[in-house]
Amino acid sequence: MTAHREAPKPLFARVALIGIGLIGSSLSHAMRRRGLAGHISGYAQSARTRETAKRLGLVDSIHETAADAVKGADLVILCTPVGVYAPIAQEIAPHLGKGAIVTDVGSVKGAVVRDVGPHIPPGVHFIPGHPIAGTEHSGPESGFAELFDGRWCVLTPVEGTAPEAVEKLSAFWRACGSNVETMDAAHHDMVLAITSHVPHLIAFSIVNTARHLERVTDSEVIKFSAGGFRDFTRIAASDPVMWRDVFLNNKEAALEMLGRFTEDITVLQRAIRFGDGETLHRLFAEARATRKGIIAAGQDTAAPDFGRHKGPPTGAKS
Amino acid sequence: MTAHREAPKPLFARVALIGIGLIGSSLSHAMRRRGLAGHISGYAQSARTRETAKRLGLVDSIHETAADAVKGADLVILCTPVGVYAPIAQEIAPHLGKGAIVTDVGSVKGAVVRDVGPHIPPGVHFIPGHPIAGTEHSGPESGFAELFDGRWCVLTPVEGTAPEAVEKLSAFWRACGSNVETMDAAHHDMVLAITSHVPHLIAFSIVNTARHLERVTDSEVIKFSAGGFRDFTRIAASDPVMWRDVFLNNKEAALEMLGRFTEDITVLQRAIRFGDGETLHRLFAEARATRKGIIAAGQDTAAPDFGRHKGPPTGAKS
Repeated sequence: MTAHREAPKPLFARVALIGIGLIGSSLSHAMRRRGLAGHISGYAQSARTRETAKRLGLVDSIHETAADAVKGADLVILCTPVGVYAPIAQEIAPHLGKGAIVTDVGSVKGAVVRDVGPHIPPGVHFIPGHPIAGTEHSGPESGFAELFDGRWCVLTPVEGTAPEAVEKLSAFWRACGSNVETMDAAHHDMVLAITSHVPHLIAFSIVNTARHLERVTDSEVIKFSAGGFRDFTRIAASDPVMWRDVFLNNKEAALEMLGRFTEDITVLQRAIRFGDGETLHRLFAEARATRKGIIAAGQDTAAPDFGRHKGPPTGAKS
Repeated sequence: MTAHREAPKPLFARVALIGIGLIGSSLSHAMRRRGLAGHISGYAQSARTRETAKRLGLVDSIHETAADAVKGADLVILCTPVGVYAPIAQEIAPHLGKGAIVTDVGSVKGAVVRDVGPHIPPGVHFIPGHPIAGTEHSGPESGFAELFDGRWCVLTPVEGTAPEAVEKLSAFWRACGSNVETMDAAHHDMVLAITSHVPHLIAFSIVNTARHLERVTDSEVIKFSAGGFRDFTRIAASDPVMWRDVFLNNKEAALEMLGRFTEDITVLQRAIRFGDGETLHRLFAEARATRKGIIAAGQDTAAPDFGRHKGPPTGAKS
């Protein structure tokens, strides 16, 4: 008999991906990269997505119902738009195994606790989660393993959740490349309203404002977009169904942050109207400091990305 | 006597850069790349910028006054914030040579016609210009030759400008890598209000909204900025003096576009308040189309930049 080294045991024997879009497919790539799952089972609503997931090798088995996909899984990850969590939770509940962890990747967390929580049977660990990562692309072909690298994943376990289950899910996200932070769902929803939800709403909105101008053509807007508008359109290209569900499910925090934003921009508007250069300069200069913090925290690079030049800059600092 | 080929004659014998920040220094790199200027003379207000410009070889001669810098120049490019154009125009006017072209790179054009035009002596061609290109960095060290490649430069000559002077300046910008379009100053100011000025105002504003939240820390805003906020901060890191001058000098168009934006975001706000998912979805889906146009026009790439991953994506379309 020859001695041999066994392959390291995967963190989870069977992971079920419920929904295979940008985040689901990126999770598959990230799990494959580090061998985190013994088997990846998948469910997607559309036949086309199921075929694509199979063709790309994103899943080891693909299922026509979420109930089938979760059978025998020790980790279930909801990756659909949050608007369909409730019926899915109801459907999978009877098929969840004792000791399994159920989590999700949705951009709101209070509504997830409300919609999914009541369906989770005793003995199953329910830990809502949100990886703060994404691109403007969607669908099963848009994923890549590096999406979560260096980003933050927020977990919002409800009171009484087994600490070892939270620790195991945290280890999973760290192995996917993320940092992990735990907070309560209400605080998450407030933080994300300002760092993600309202910025997206603004981006969607100004793109539409530009489209409806009578005296500026769409082609002019597109041609001269490099002056700042371009960056807004990138955010506004994100999945409309996902974002509809975010706003339907984080109403209070989104409206509060939007109200504050409107107040602040009204101050700037008044300063423009009255030619108050001092106020404009002061508020513009203050905003600059936050950018420096984001670069220092590794959440963006100092490269002059706004210029989108090809090739290395000849004289640029980076 | 041996036959020899002469080096191609530069487009301009002597170009004066008045102001050497991001755009001035990028112009120097772009001119050097193609040998567009026989001599580059420079003026900057601060001794430190003058020293840096000399050290980096951005200029062949550096001058302590704008008047000295323009002497003998056949092309004068104003690259300072637009707020100081009027006194500079007054200062350089007596030193401009017959047949010289005076242009600028400011983000507003109506105010430039108003502030500079009256000082330009007969026989000098005054052609306001605006390269729609930039990064979030500023200063003489931030420039690079490729900044203008594939971008648009708008020229807004007043009626009666000599066509051959407009053609020569257009050839200069094309040699710097740009496409060139001509329009009147008022139309420019309206187009840029929506594609650049209001997006910047929004970005400055929401960054400050985030900074003043009582229940969300600055460190949380920074950590979780990858959800969209990050892209706003990049724009909000732009030079505050330049932007103050933009808003002081494009008041009407900026206020009009801001008013339209406020109307449109109010519709979305109301849809959130009343849970109107259909309206949200329709308006979000419409915004997506504009993004596709920008990519098709070569003003951005389809790469999932919003993700800022390092290394090539494993499964991403691009």
